[in-house]
Amino acid sequence: MDLTMKYIHSNLIGTFVLNKDFNILDEHLFKNIKDYDGKDKIEKKLMKKHKAKELDKKDVKNLQEQLKDKKYFRQFYQNNFEQTVQDIKKSISKDDLINQTIANINDIDKTTNILVKRLRDWFKLSLPELDKMISDHETFTDLVINKSKKELLKELGITSENSMGTELKEEDLEEITELAKSVDLLYKLRKKHEIYLKNLMEEFCPNLLELCGITIGAKLFGHAKSLKRLALLPASTVQLLGAEKALFRHIKTGAPSPKYGIIFTHQLVQKARRKEQGIVARTLANKISLAVRVDFFKGEPIGKKLRKELEDKFKRK
Amino acid sequence: MDLTMKYIHSNLIGTFVLNKDFNILDEHLFKNIKDYDGKDKIEKKLMKKHKAKELDKKDVKNLQEQLKDKKYFRQFYQNNFEQTVQDIKKSISKDDLINQTIANINDIDKTTNILVKRLRDWFKLSLPELDKMISDHETFTDLVINKSKKELLKELGITSENSMGTELKEEDLEEITELAKSVDLLYKLRKKHEIYLKNLMEEFCPNLLELCGITIGAKLFGHAKSLKRLALLPASTVQLLGAEKALFRHIKTGAPSPKYGIIFTHQLVQKARRKEQGIVARTLANKISLAVRVDFFKGEPIGKKLRKELEDKFKRK
Repeated sequence: MDLTMKYIHSNLIGTFVLNKDFNILDEHLFKNIKDYDGKDKIEKKLMKKHKAKELDKKDVKNLQEQLKDKKYFRQFYQNNFEQTVQDIKKSISKDDLINQTIANINDIDKTTNILVKRLRDWFKLSLPELDKMISDHETFTDLVINKSKKELLKELGITSENSMGTELKEEDLEEITELAKSVDLLYKLRKKHEIYLKNLMEEFCPNLLELCGITIGAKLFGHAKSLKRLALLPASTVQLLGAEKALFRHIKTGAPSPKYGIIFTHQLVQKARRKEQGIVARTLANKISLAVRVDFFKGEPIGKKLRKELEDKFKRK
Repeated sequence: MDLTMKYIHSNLIGTFVLNKDFNILDEHLFKNIKDYDGKDKIEKKLMKKHKAKELDKKDVKNLQEQLKDKKYFRQFYQNNFEQTVQDIKKSISKDDLINQTIANINDIDKTTNILVKRLRDWFKLSLPELDKMISDHETFTDLVINKSKKELLKELGITSENSMGTELKEEDLEEITELAKSVDLLYKLRKKHEIYLKNLMEEFCPNLLELCGITIGAKLFGHAKSLKRLALLPASTVQLLGAEKALFRHIKTGAPSPKYGIIFTHQLVQKARRKEQGIVARTLANKISLAVRVDFFKGEPIGKKLRKELEDKFKRK
């Protein structure tokens, strides 16, 4: 055993030089986390000075014992805190942005539904006939904002006297129109979110997007919560994502097993004959699984090819 | 019995002249509901011509039998329909406007709560510290819209490095800011509704407003759904409006009876000693009942007087 042997080791607190009995001979403490990032330089310097070699992993615990000394506590706490902040900063990923956008699109759907029902109910006081004639919410909102009652009556082909609505005062109508404007803004925001989400997905999971489109792609993503998790799911799980209720009913009561979850609304499954929908869903889920894995490992674009394969395979004769 | 006696009677279909056996001698049919509104003129003319007197109510059924003839059907259907339209038009009252406004304020509260939670969650990616520091939703929304991250960091007294948030790209932040703008618009709309509601109530139920303020007044109104119903409720019911659950628990299980419902949040009840809250609530409900009845029957303003009486009575010594 070489009695002059010296060891060197760095951690969040600093770089330490130990003698053969693992007592601290020399130390360089880090003032903040930036010093830790430049630890290689300091290690080199100290290595040269002491002719030390790197401490073996199994001996690290000998150093740790000595670091329990109180004088290191404050520095350790501070550096550790800073490091955690950095780690949290880095942990925010495209996953989070995509998830928040998908969640907000759902929230907007929920809230516009509440508000547009109120709008229809309220506007009925002025012109109840419009509610029945226009079932599309966006068109309804648009008409309330942009057309006067006179114009609306003309479009509906009825006179003011035949209408069951009453003549509201300017200030009464204004409240309704302002509500309509808020609803309209939410519809516009939803569209903006969709474009933004599409851009994110084009960059982050282009193959999933290519194969499933934005609606189903986002639903699958939202269900799995991250691209990594979606990539790790077996294809059979992807096939049934969103059909959890039916699946557990199948397991508990022996009811027929579900054939598809979210992907049921995919064009290919929809177009297939009823008998073939199961096999189409299974094949589609396989391809999706493949596409997502390519996305996760940043492989070559494969979405278009997969889509074409599927379309050729299940082309209706 | 005068054998030359003739009778005259009008209904939606027309004005009819009958002989002593109640057979139709002469008739003037109404083409539309406007003719019906002018029936007095026509009746006068026919009365003069035939020297007829008005048909007694008990004999009207004799005329109705004859009107079952098919030739009257179309006209009856059309005139009746027009009359119904007019009635519906007239039935829309201030009640409806107030109810819709109150309901929409509630809807806006519901929706902004959903959206502002999403906003906080989303903005946490950029600057999680703001969420903890600012608990008021409106202030939070305002800051997200109007301050850059740099300004916010400065206000919070932290550096970008100490923040656990990440640097989002311009386009990522824009989606969040747009969401904040929508939420802000809804907050503004709520305020506009409140002013409008106050104006409506000042005109329609000034005494209720004077006595209870806008919040409690609107809640009482929203619960009863119309001023008439609120005016017809006994004071003891007004006292317990909004405490239905506790009341039925009391009836079913013998639990303590509730002392107040919506009016619990009234300043006077709040300020009273715990032991006196019951009697204050009862007295307040009595006065509210009185005020609402004065409102309904369009009496002289009484709200201020009632309020003063209450304040004098329960002034804390």
